[in-house]
Amino acid sequence: MASSHSVVFVRHGESEFNRDNIFTGWCDPDLTTKGVAEAKDAGKILREYGFEFDIAFTSLLKRAIKTLYFIQDELDCHWIPVTKTWMLNERHYGKLQGKNKDEVAGKYGPEQVQLWRRAFYERPPLLEETDEHWNGSDKRYADLPFIPAGESLDDTSKRSLPFWHNLVVPALRAGQKPLVCGHANILRNLIKHLDSNLSLDIKELNLPNALPLVVELDENLVPSKFQFLNHGNGMAPKKRSSHS
Amino acid sequence: MASSHSVVFVRHGESEFNRDNIFTGWCDPDLTTKGVAEAKDAGKILREYGFEFDIAFTSLLKRAIKTLYFIQDELDCHWIPVTKTWMLNERHYGKLQGKNKDEVAGKYGPEQVQLWRRAFYERPPLLEETDEHWNGSDKRYADLPFIPAGESLDDTSKRSLPFWHNLVVPALRAGQKPLVCGHANILRNLIKHLDSNLSLDIKELNLPNALPLVVELDENLVPSKFQFLNHGNGMAPKKRSSHS
Repeated sequence: MASSHSVVFVRHGESEFNRDNIFTGWCDPDLTTKGVAEAKDAGKILREYGFEFDIAFTSLLKRAIKTLYFIQDELDCHWIPVTKTWMLNERHYGKLQGKNKDEVAGKYGPEQVQLWRRAFYERPPLLEETDEHWNGSDKRYADLPFIPAGESLDDTSKRSLPFWHNLVVPALRAGQKPLVCGHANILRNLIKHLDSNLSLDIKELNLPNALPLVVELDENLVPSKFQFLNHGNGMAPKKRSSHS
Repeated sequence: MASSHSVVFVRHGESEFNRDNIFTGWCDPDLTTKGVAEAKDAGKILREYGFEFDIAFTSLLKRAIKTLYFIQDELDCHWIPVTKTWMLNERHYGKLQGKNKDEVAGKYGPEQVQLWRRAFYERPPLLEETDEHWNGSDKRYADLPFIPAGESLDDTSKRSLPFWHNLVVPALRAGQKPLVCGHANILRNLIKHLDSNLSLDIKELNLPNALPLVVELDENLVPSKFQFLNHGNGMAPKKRSSHS
């Protein structure tokens, strides 16, 4: 079936916390040199496939914003409108933020960590207002209805779905081609909701850094195909897992 | 008098057409290496003076958009909302666009060129729809009420003033600190309108690339002071002309 609409999801390039194996959430590390190269490469891949975008969405975190910038630079589409929204922020990882993943596994056990990472209703230990990572005084979140202290994947649905329905759907209905530059957990969360017909095992889905994922949708905006893009052949990359 | 509000204007860093002495207008050359360095330096100067911004405005042209990006990167404020608008585009230079300034002066005489550049009601020779620089098929201008063929400084007022009143004034009234990243003629045009009390000679005002200009405004949003920023002392730079 020919696709009526499409949207491209890209997770940010490698961040300093990715490199150092640290839980990130709403912490705001920069891209590494490798991450910048990955972001530029995502732009090159999209150019190779002839993608053009009319509008872009990203989070309030610089690893995603900068990834989007490098993609725009490669595609020569600096001018497209970009909406930055907290609704696309990475899942808030509560007290795990800023902590080394191995040390957390050593302290709580790998089973508990796997539950925190992938069980849908499991919240991480919650942040307190006295914690250095508490976002209450950060100006970028001044307009939020509340400041999260730690989110389950279910919690993130309460912002990923409004993001989709209030921002992406109107753009698609207007015939626009959106690019969404986000984070692993919020994009997985979105894909889980979009993919209800395709029976994807969300617990097994890994989103590699800065690898474009094309979501084709039919005229009712129901996804008909998920496709990672890589150089040259349009085939899925080795790193991906269950999208076969 | 203490300033109630302020807005910072920055002209883009050196573009490839600046370097090559070419009329630019709505052509979209990239920044040169020097231009990138100038943009980063503008960010460093603003950081040095402790400037923070809540919102930014720029044109649809990459030399201004990228200058803004490099400033945001230096100030670590990637997350602030950025509105890109054609109302901030450089003055449209008609048939002069893409042409070497010396060659144009050789053909038409320096007096005529000076008229085109600085006389308020003088339009350049108008572009035709068959010209390679005609913007009618450029997607970024699809929503414009009309496509300019060449603008006088008076023509640009018809978009610089709506830009100021519809976008900047509401931000200032909301207590925000805006950063405006634009182009020589459109910013001069705006300054001319803002500066009616200060009797600045707009024909003599040069805006150096990527040098922040702070406009302080009183509670009625009437400008009370224009001040270029430079490293270290807050004094005006040598390159500037009549702001003494």
